[in-house]
Formats: sequence, structure tokens, C-alpha cells
Amino acid sequence: MPRAVREQQMLDAAVRTFGQRGYTTASMDEIAELAGVSKPLVYLYLNSKEDLFTACIRREAKALTEAVRAGARPGLPADRQLWSGLTAFFTHTARHPDGWAVLHLQARTHGEVFAAEVAAMRAEIVAFVTQLILAAAREALPRTLGCARAGGTPADPDLPEHEVSGLAEALVGAAESLADWANATPGVTARQSAATLMNFAWTGLGDLMAGRRWSPPDDDPGGGAGDDLDDGGNDGTGGRQDTDDGGTGGARAPAAHAGRTSPVR
Amino acid sequence: MPRAVREQQMLDAAVRTFGQRGYTTASMDEIAELAGVSKPLVYLYLNSKEDLFTACIRREAKALTEAVRAGARPGLPADRQLWSGLTAFFTHTARHPDGWAVLHLQARTHGEVFAAEVAAMRAEIVAFVTQLILAAAREALPRTLGCARAGGTPADPDLPEHEVSGLAEALVGAAESLADWANATPGVTARQSAATLMNFAWTGLGDLMAGRRWSPPDDDPGGGAGDDLDDGGNDGTGGRQDTDDGGTGGARAPAAHAGRTSPVR
Repeated sequence: MPRAVREQQMLDAAVRTFGQRGYTTASMDEIAELAGVSKPLVYLYLNSKEDLFTACIRREAKALTEAVRAGARPGLPADRQLWSGLTAFFTHTARHPDGWAVLHLQARTHGEVFAAEVAAMRAEIVAFVTQLILAAAREALPRTLGCARAGGTPADPDLPEHEVSGLAEALVGAAESLADWANATPGVTARQSAATLMNFAWTGLGDLMAGRRWSPPDDDPGGGAGDDLDDGGNDGTGGRQDTDDGGTGGARAPAAHAGRTSPVR
Repeated sequence: MPRAVREQQMLDAAVRTFGQRGYTTASMDEIAELAGVSKPLVYLYLNSKEDLFTACIRREAKALTEAVRAGARPGLPADRQLWSGLTAFFTHTARHPDGWAVLHLQARTHGEVFAAEVAAMRAEIVAFVTQLILAAAREALPRTLGCARAGGTPADPDLPEHEVSGLAEALVGAAESLADWANATPGVTARQSAATLMNFAWTGLGDLMAGRRWSPPDDDPGGGAGDDLDDGGNDGTGGRQDTDDGGTGGARAPAAHAGRTSPVR
């Protein structure tokens, strides 16, 4: 049997063992046994438990990233792209629960070197989602300008860069959390997870792309935190919020008691 | 100086050191020096580096949970509650970046014992958010029934239990991810983070509470994953989706090419 095939068998056994039993508990003995090879051969091919685990992380990260990229279809409208990307993601995590456990639970729990491997994959996915959101915003541009021309306040349909990054982080975090939950909850299918996240995220993003933002009411000094709020910024530049957030965060933003603003910014 | 006060000083120094330098790199020497006490006194009071770290996790978890609970105001409409809860959360994480790093990065990266401490806090917050979503759904009930009576398809305004859990997981995951990002990105205030998440989540949840769901179009066999989809369920009960998901996930759900369904379920 060629070395490459043998190695994949070892990695299959290792992903299953690490995912189900945890990195610390898993032994090289049981991985070798599950792979049907001798333990010295595992060490010969993969060097050490640490290197074997790193190889698992890289293989599973690559497979997940490719599945998501293959799922997103650039030609479709934004909501269809998001739906197909999310469906591909949840299908992959549901079909490879051990791989997902290695990436999202094990790799982040056993040291900074492994966590850094996963962080690199996550950054790639966030960048990819950021591009999708920017493309959706561009797609929505003529529609939003149309609204503004039809009598609304002149709108700048570009989302501020920091808000697009924030939305991408929120979407990826929501998807990760939901994948953990779906894999731990009997009876939840990949389609259900994707539909739940569409219900949660798309109509939100969808409204945003159409220029409809949620705004705190005028009589609200800033939510439940009262006077804690004014210097909530982490770098002391809290004052920027009034000039730099497109009017979303300031107490001076237009009120919308129904939880919606009109389609202007 | 009373022991309790001294201990809090040691924990302050430890949270800062663990949060900024990482659990592995942080030394008891620098923690003692920052606290202005001798190293033997730290060991006398907190026993070991592991116990000191555990004490940090518990203190920071309690502070964060209390801040979120204090922020959510039961008497307000659902969107205001969510806004005030999120603002309280992001204000707390922005003001205590080292505490947040201990909880969300350090504690999850250095072993299963510490990760379990954080998982307990997270479960409490998810349960709390689940109750908020259920309360919002009850609040929306008369409105939704009104829509149905006004001529729409008869609606069951209760969200399926698994969907409420999924929404709570998505919201908590999005908030965690956004807090990491906000603390790593200069110039992002707590109010901006909360407003971004409202734009992302509330109009989504808001539509859902009003009975408007996103549905995949009829001509879509299931997103981008093609034939991967039919058995995407992780426990082989994929067939449940057609009876148990309130019509959100099945390919037979009503089409909505604009990304919205009519306000019926």
C-alpha cells in the first residue's frame, strides 16, 4: 500500500480518536490499532503525537474551507449564496463531527500552537465571508440608491469597512456556535441549522443591505448599562462613534420604535 | 489589609497578566510583583497557578454574567431588551479586555478543566438568552395570530423548541466572536458592536417573531452541496426535517425569491 494511502488511514483514525476522546486522553496505541498499523509505523510517518494532531488540524481545516468555498456560488443572488454556503458548512460539520470537534474544541483547548493553526483557517473564512458581504452590498447598491432618489435622505450605500468586518465576525461566530450545538443535539439536520441561521442572519443582513438599520430609540441613553456607556470603547476613542459609525450607534440616531428605521441611513 | 482585599488585588494582577501574556507564559513572580505582594503570599492564599487561574475564571465569569443580567430589562419590548443586554455585554468586555481574554481565549486553550468552567458560564448565558427569545415570541404572539386571522395561512406562533435553542446559540456565538474582534480592532466602541449585532440579529429575529421566515426557493435542491444534503443530519434522523422544523428547512417550503416569505408560517 502506498505511503500516502497509509497516511490518510492513520489520519482518519487519529481524527476519530482525537475528536471522540480528546487530545489528552487519546493514545497513540489506540490510533495505531484503529488504523490497523503498528505504532512504530505511525511514529515513522507522523513523527509524534503533536505532529499527528497538527496534521489532523491541517487536513480538516483544508477540507472544511474547501467545502464552504465550493458551496458558495458566486453567480447567485446574495441570499441564495449565503444559504448555499451555510448549507455546505453545516452539511460538512454534520458529516464530519470528529473533524469539527478537532477543529473547534480540541485544537483550541490544547495549547497556543494548535490554536494558531485554527486561527489561520478562521481568518481565511472570515475574509471570504467579508468578500461575500461586500459583494451583496454592491449588488444592493442600485436598489438603495433608488430608495434614496425616490425621496429618502441621500444614502451612502457602502457599508463602513469596520461594520462589514463586524458582520462577518458575527456570522462566522454564529455558525461555529450553531455547528457545536447541532452536533450535540439529536435530530437537528444540516438543513435545519442552515435555515435557523438564515432566519437569524439573512433577514437581518437583508434589511441592512436594503438600507434599513435598527436604531436605539431617542429616549434611550444607551441600553441597560446606563452611565457605563460613554467610555465603552476599548481604546479611549469612544468619541469616534458619532462620526464614524454611519449613525448606527450614537444616541442621536433616528428613533424607530418598531425596531426598524426607514430605508435610509 | 484584610485577606479578602489582598486576594482581590492578587486576582486583579493575575487576570491582567494571564489576559495579556497568556496562561503558559505568565509567571507567578510577575503576578506577585504586579499585586505588590510576595510570591509565597500568593501561594498561601491561592495555592497554585492552576487554582489561581481557576479563581480568575470564576470571578470574571460571575462579573460578566451579572453585567448581562443587569443589562437586560424585563419590562421593555423585546428589541429594547436585546439592545440593552448586548450593550451591557459589549461594554463589559470592552472595559475588561483582560477578563474577556481569560474567559474566551486563555481558559479555552489550556486544558479541559478550565474549558469546563467557561462552558458552565456559557450554558447559563445561553439558557438566559433562550428565555429572552421565548418571552419575545410570547410578546409577538397576538400580533402573529392577528396576521393569520387577517387572512393568512393559520399560524402556530410558538417557535419549535429546537429552533429557539439554535437561535440562542447563534446569538451567543455571534456576540462572542464580535467581542474578540472589537477588542482587537482599534476604534470600535461597545455601542458600535451592539448596533452591528442588532443590525445583524434583531431585524432577523424581529422578522421571525412576526412570522416572516426566510425560505429556500423551490428550484433549489438544497444549496450548494448538491447530493451531499439528504443525509446531512448527524444522527441519521434527517427525515425529521420535513415534519419537525416548522417548514423552514424542507425543500417543500414556500419560495421567496426576494429572500422573504409573507408574514405567515
